[in-house]
Amino acid sequence: MQNFRFSNPTEIVFGRGSIAELATLIPRNKKILMLYGSGSIKRNGVYDQVMEALRGTDFLEFGGIEPNPRHETCMKAVELARKEKVDFLLSVGGGSVLDGTKYIAAAVPFAGDPWDILARKATVNEALPLGCVLTLPATGSESNGFSVVSRDATNEKLAFYSPLVYPKFAVLDPAVTVTLDARQTANGIVDAYAHVLEQYLTYDVNAPLQDRQAEAILLTLIEEGPKVLAKPDDYDVRANIMWCATNALNGLIACGVPQDWTTHMIGHELTALYGLDHAQTLAVVFPATLRRLRANKREKLLRYARRVWNLTGDSPDSLIDQAIDRTENFFRSLGVKTRLEAYGIRDGLERIPERLKNNGSLPLGERGDVDESVVRDILNLCAV
Amino acid sequence: MQNFRFSNPTEIVFGRGSIAELATLIPRNKKILMLYGSGSIKRNGVYDQVMEALRGTDFLEFGGIEPNPRHETCMKAVELARKEKVDFLLSVGGGSVLDGTKYIAAAVPFAGDPWDILARKATVNEALPLGCVLTLPATGSESNGFSVVSRDATNEKLAFYSPLVYPKFAVLDPAVTVTLDARQTANGIVDAYAHVLEQYLTYDVNAPLQDRQAEAILLTLIEEGPKVLAKPDDYDVRANIMWCATNALNGLIACGVPQDWTTHMIGHELTALYGLDHAQTLAVVFPATLRRLRANKREKLLRYARRVWNLTGDSPDSLIDQAIDRTENFFRSLGVKTRLEAYGIRDGLERIPERLKNNGSLPLGERGDVDESVVRDILNLCAV
Repeated sequence: MQNFRFSNPTEIVFGRGSIAELATLIPRNKKILMLYGSGSIKRNGVYDQVMEALRGTDFLEFGGIEPNPRHETCMKAVELARKEKVDFLLSVGGGSVLDGTKYIAAAVPFAGDPWDILARKATVNEALPLGCVLTLPATGSESNGFSVVSRDATNEKLAFYSPLVYPKFAVLDPAVTVTLDARQTANGIVDAYAHVLEQYLTYDVNAPLQDRQAEAILLTLIEEGPKVLAKPDDYDVRANIMWCATNALNGLIACGVPQDWTTHMIGHELTALYGLDHAQTLAVVFPATLRRLRANKREKLLRYARRVWNLTGDSPDSLIDQAIDRTENFFRSLGVKTRLEAYGIRDGLERIPERLKNNGSLPLGERGDVDESVVRDILNLCAV
Repeated sequence: MQNFRFSNPTEIVFGRGSIAELATLIPRNKKILMLYGSGSIKRNGVYDQVMEALRGTDFLEFGGIEPNPRHETCMKAVELARKEKVDFLLSVGGGSVLDGTKYIAAAVPFAGDPWDILARKATVNEALPLGCVLTLPATGSESNGFSVVSRDATNEKLAFYSPLVYPKFAVLDPAVTVTLDARQTANGIVDAYAHVLEQYLTYDVNAPLQDRQAEAILLTLIEEGPKVLAKPDDYDVRANIMWCATNALNGLIACGVPQDWTTHMIGHELTALYGLDHAQTLAVVFPATLRRLRANKREKLLRYARRVWNLTGDSPDSLIDQAIDRTENFFRSLGVKTRLEAYGIRDGLERIPERLKNNGSLPLGERGDVDESVVRDILNLCAV
C-alpha cells in the first residue's frame, strides 16, 4: 500500500424526506445564494421543498447553470454574489450545478481572473462555504473537492480540486431521483462505474481492502442497473445507486492506491469538442483505454474479470478480453452507446492529443506513459 | 436502506514515516498534553519519533493509561490538564490510551462529575481538541467518536459517544505495529472483525453496497490474519490489517443499516468482572450470540456463509452452522480461546444479565428483543 492522507468533512444527510432537514443545516446568520439548473426542480417538487426549508433565511436565487457548467454563466453568479455580499452557497441539482457552485465559491473571493484556477492551477486560498441538495447521482461531487467547468470562449473543459470546496453538507433524498429519465439514470450509473475503474484498474500495490471496496461498488451497480431500468420508481434501487455514486468518488477507494484518469481526460475533450454527455464519453473511451493499456493493467484486469464478472478459465488473455467486452456490454445494456460512430462523430479526433498536450494533461496513466501517441491509439479504438 | 446521517472529520495520515508529519499536524499555538500507556512506546522508538516531531511546541506528558483505561487514572490527567491550562491532547498508543484521552478531553471542561458522561449519558457540550498516533490497530477509535472507560470503584466498564471527540488527525504508521506480540496482534484482528459483524449480521434492509463493504473487511482480515502470524514483520500485511481496523468502525458500514452490539455489551461485563482482554470476550461471546440469535439473523447469516466463507449447499441450517463454526475457528486459529472455561471462568455469570439491566443496556439486539433471559442463554453457550 502507498502512503496516503484521507479526510472527508462533508456531512451526508441521506434518505426519504431529508430535504426538510435543510432547515437545520443551513446557517441562519448568513446570506444565502441558492443555485440551480434548467428548472427541472420546479417540476419535480424539489424547489418547493427547498423553499419550505429556507423559510426565514435571507436568500437569493440564481438559475440556469447548464450541464457541463459554463464559466460564462458562473461569472454572472459571481457578480451577483459579490454585489449582494452573499456568504453561503446552496446548490440544488445534479453534479453540474454543484460543480458550477464550487467554482463560484472559489471565484467570489479570488483576486485575479478566476479561470486561472482551472487553466493555470492557481491556488484557491479562500472559498465561500457551500452545501448541496443532490438530485442526480453520478459525479460524487456531493462529497469531494473536485469541480469541472467548461468555457465557451476557448472551447475548454477543465477540472480543479480544492479542500475548501467540499460541501459542508449534502442532502441526498433518493425519492427525488425517481423522476430522472432513462438517459440521465444510465449516465449516472456509467459515471459512477467509471470513477471506480479509474481508481481500481491500475497496478497492484497489495491493497486488498481497497480492491474489495472498489469491487463492492462495481458489483452493486451491475446488480442495480437493470433493476432501475425495469422499475424506475423503486426507492430502494434508487437509494442503492445514489449511495454507490457517492462512494465511488468520496476519496476512500483512492486511499493508498495508484490512479489513472486517462479516460476522463480524453472524455472531457470529446465533450468540449462534440458536446457528448460526460457519461457517453466514458462509455466510449473506457473500453478503448482498457484494450490499449491491457499490458499495464494486466494483473488488475484479471482480478476484475474473476471477482466482478465471475469469469473463470485458464487463459489470462481470454479473461481480459471477456472482462472488457462485459464492461462495454454493461454500458450498452443501459442504453449508452460505446462507439464514436454511433454518435455521428468521425472527424477531427486528431485535435485531441494535441489539446491534451497543450493544456498540460500529458503524460497520463498510472505509470505516466500515456503520451500523444497512446491517446491517438485509444481514440482509434473508440471509433467504430 | 434506512435513512442516515454520516460524517467523519478525522484526517488520516497513513504510511511509513508518517509520525514525522506530526510536526505539521500539531497546532503550534496550543499547550499540548501528550498521553501514553505503559511505556512500550519508549521501547519501540515511537516516543523518540514523537519527541522529534513535537520539538518547539509547548507540551507536557502523562503516562500510565492502562488497557481498559481507568476513570481513576484519567481523573489525574484531567487535574493536570486543568492546572496547566492544556488546550490540545495528543494520544500516543493503542485504543485504550485513545479512549482514555477522549474521556479526558470531554472531562476537562465538564462542570459536574465526569463519570456522569458514561453512567448517566450526560451531554458533552464541549471537549478539548485531540489528535492521535496509533500504535495498535483494533478499536477503530482513531476515526470515531466512541470511548470505553472502566471504573475501579464501581467495577463498571461503560461507553460514551460524542461527535466532539473524533480525533482531528490520526497518524497511522504500520511500521510501528510490527513490534506487537502475537496476542496483541490477534486481539486487534478479532476486535476489528467483531466490529464488522455487529454492523453486518442483523436483518436485511436492501443495502447491498454496505453489505459488500462489510464483507470486504471480513474477507481481508481472514486473508491477512494467517499471514501476520507467519510473518509478523511484513509491512504490507500490517498496513492492510491497520486499514481494515479503521474501516471497521469509522461509521461507513453502519450507514443506513441496523446494528446489534449485544456481543460487545456482554463482553464489557466479562472484562469488568474477570479482567479478560476485550478481544477475548468478543471471541467467546460472538459465536454464542450468533447461535442463540440465528433465527433473527437468518438471512444475513446465509449471506455471510456464502460470501465470506464461500460455503455452498442447499441446507440453510447447515450453512449457518458451518459459518458460525468457521468464525469461531478463525478466532482460535489466531490463538484466541473461545470458551469461558478455557479462561478458567466458571462462576458468577448470573450477575451479568442483572448488571446489564441495571446499567440501562437492555434490551439489546437489532430488534430490541435481547432481554435478561436471552443474555443468560448466550452466556450458557459461552461456557464450555
